[in-house]
Amino acid sequence: MVNRIFNFSPGPAMLPLAALEEAQRDLLALPGVGISILEISHRSKAFEAIIGQAEANLRTLLAIPDNYRVLFLQGGALLQFAMVPMSFLRNTGKSADYIVSGTWSKKAQEEAKTQGKVHTAWDGKSGNYNRLPQQSELELDPDAAYVYTASNETIQGVQFSREPDVGGVPLVCDSSSDFLSRPVPIDRYGILFACAQKNAGPAGVTIVIIRDDLVQRSPADLPSMLNYRLLAENKSLLNTPPVFGVYMVKLVTDWLLKEVGGLEKMAAINRQKAQMLYEAIDHSGGFYQRHAEPASRSMMNVTFRLPETALDEKFLGEAKALGLVELKGHRSVGGFRASIYNAMPMEGVVTLRDFMLEFSRKYGRAGSP
Amino acid sequence: MVNRIFNFSPGPAMLPLAALEEAQRDLLALPGVGISILEISHRSKAFEAIIGQAEANLRTLLAIPDNYRVLFLQGGALLQFAMVPMSFLRNTGKSADYIVSGTWSKKAQEEAKTQGKVHTAWDGKSGNYNRLPQQSELELDPDAAYVYTASNETIQGVQFSREPDVGGVPLVCDSSSDFLSRPVPIDRYGILFACAQKNAGPAGVTIVIIRDDLVQRSPADLPSMLNYRLLAENKSLLNTPPVFGVYMVKLVTDWLLKEVGGLEKMAAINRQKAQMLYEAIDHSGGFYQRHAEPASRSMMNVTFRLPETALDEKFLGEAKALGLVELKGHRSVGGFRASIYNAMPMEGVVTLRDFMLEFSRKYGRAGSP
Repeated sequence: MVNRIFNFSPGPAMLPLAALEEAQRDLLALPGVGISILEISHRSKAFEAIIGQAEANLRTLLAIPDNYRVLFLQGGALLQFAMVPMSFLRNTGKSADYIVSGTWSKKAQEEAKTQGKVHTAWDGKSGNYNRLPQQSELELDPDAAYVYTASNETIQGVQFSREPDVGGVPLVCDSSSDFLSRPVPIDRYGILFACAQKNAGPAGVTIVIIRDDLVQRSPADLPSMLNYRLLAENKSLLNTPPVFGVYMVKLVTDWLLKEVGGLEKMAAINRQKAQMLYEAIDHSGGFYQRHAEPASRSMMNVTFRLPETALDEKFLGEAKALGLVELKGHRSVGGFRASIYNAMPMEGVVTLRDFMLEFSRKYGRAGSP
Repeated sequence: MVNRIFNFSPGPAMLPLAALEEAQRDLLALPGVGISILEISHRSKAFEAIIGQAEANLRTLLAIPDNYRVLFLQGGALLQFAMVPMSFLRNTGKSADYIVSGTWSKKAQEEAKTQGKVHTAWDGKSGNYNRLPQQSELELDPDAAYVYTASNETIQGVQFSREPDVGGVPLVCDSSSDFLSRPVPIDRYGILFACAQKNAGPAGVTIVIIRDDLVQRSPADLPSMLNYRLLAENKSLLNTPPVFGVYMVKLVTDWLLKEVGGLEKMAAINRQKAQMLYEAIDHSGGFYQRHAEPASRSMMNVTFRLPETALDEKFLGEAKALGLVELKGHRSVGGFRASIYNAMPMEGVVTLRDFMLEFSRKYGRAGSP
């Protein structure tokens, strides 16, 4: 019996046990193949079937329209932060609109500045990114090269509940930390990308869903590995892809389809898990203090602080003793962050919620003698 | 008992069974951590120890001098083909010397053309890349931005036995397919890089060994993920690295150090394995026809053809029946290629050699009735 704990890390994050167990069982040799997934040729029939199934699963789960390509790339979201402006901003004479809703969209904007002009359509820094903009607050340029947004900000714990209306301008979305957590109308996006290590697989593979007209507009003067058109034409096999990462995406999406039953069901479970923690915060009589405003709250990353930072180490220590780890918040927000991606079991959230209630009784005013 | 076969693929390629078995054993949870290597935070103490040990192992195996950084990156050799000229050719007013010894150095040269002027210091195309140049054949520009070479050409099966003399110009080497197969004088190189999936680990991690003065010369206007200086300053943790790939590099280099006993010993075994196949070719009375000239032969990729292509399918089919797979040569060379990287067991090479002798007896003139 392996001793596994509840890992609330913002990413890399927990994976479904069923996927881990299948990977473990077959690690020395894929059944009927005699070669490990860690050794198999990316040009083999066996891997062709695996990457084909991973893509088919994603297409089913997200109802991806036929005029979108699904790419399995390397370099994480950070390389996408560069490839997007290298491809669609540089040399266009246009500027790109960035909706800055937290650390990661800010970082993406900085990367874009190396390639061309950027315009801030909105920036939530005055509230330390504790809320998202209303549509009416967005200053959008109708002639922008694209509008950039992050659907969920991992550090601040804010999540868009729907896409901004950007007219005919391509919408580019970093969905790294809420990918596959709920249904998404892909046809509203020009590009939607996500590193895998939150909801889709291990670190080292990045999924890019990109509309055909943007694929075709990739500039020819880019190096091959930065050229969406070449990557798409070669079905992610322009060079050796992250084979094991793609395999894990297949196993995780198998689980989503067969065990969970699709993204509507996954979203319902995720809402239930988040609700449990937000209620513990809201009903704590002010002991737990939220970071994100209720209307902007993330279903993936729950951020909160204690009434005094002197209690922080105690909170982390007592949580760890219960097998609840990686709860420390990012220094820019402080306090705590519980990342409760798809694979975090309900049991983990219940254990955390119960601990939070107990901790507030013990150290809160209500519990003082 | 898992049924594993002898996989002569040029890459991804076989891994040491000991490394696969350790990865399998701990796949659900690292001992004492309770979290899988596929889920662990790249900022955790446990992963810090793993990446630190992977680097320490590489430093020991290759005697890497202190003024070199060791980076674990994504994107394969193909992204290095771009990052090198983006960093050290673009905007320098110089040109870069490329020694074109096969498919991969040719491809690297093409990628560099997107970034600046390239000069061909030598090109082996007239002999279909069946030999390597003498020092006297190299047309080197003493003012070149760098000299680029591939130490081993996977497709043609030619391998440099020593570095070209390039004076004070930085030498850049793609060592993807012979990395860790033998000792290398790192101080002769400005940059030596290798994708892992031949000798060092699974696909999805690329090791870059780069001298400090080049690190410091990385242009500031590059996107972060393409900037060697930022990657080095952040010790490969600028963003989430390919955690599992780094872990496997640690396990493979553990094996090289502890089981094999270092690169001198590995090189001796590799010479013995290659010798066995080359002797079978040379002593076949012309039945097996070499591609690479003897002085340029690779210890990693053994390329040969049969007297008539009509026999090719028979050769592959009979080999497969013995559990010898992925022997088909690249279309640009034809015939066969046996890739015998570090982890190919002696038993696999003996089985192939014996099969080759038997096949030539059966179908060669000597064996005709």
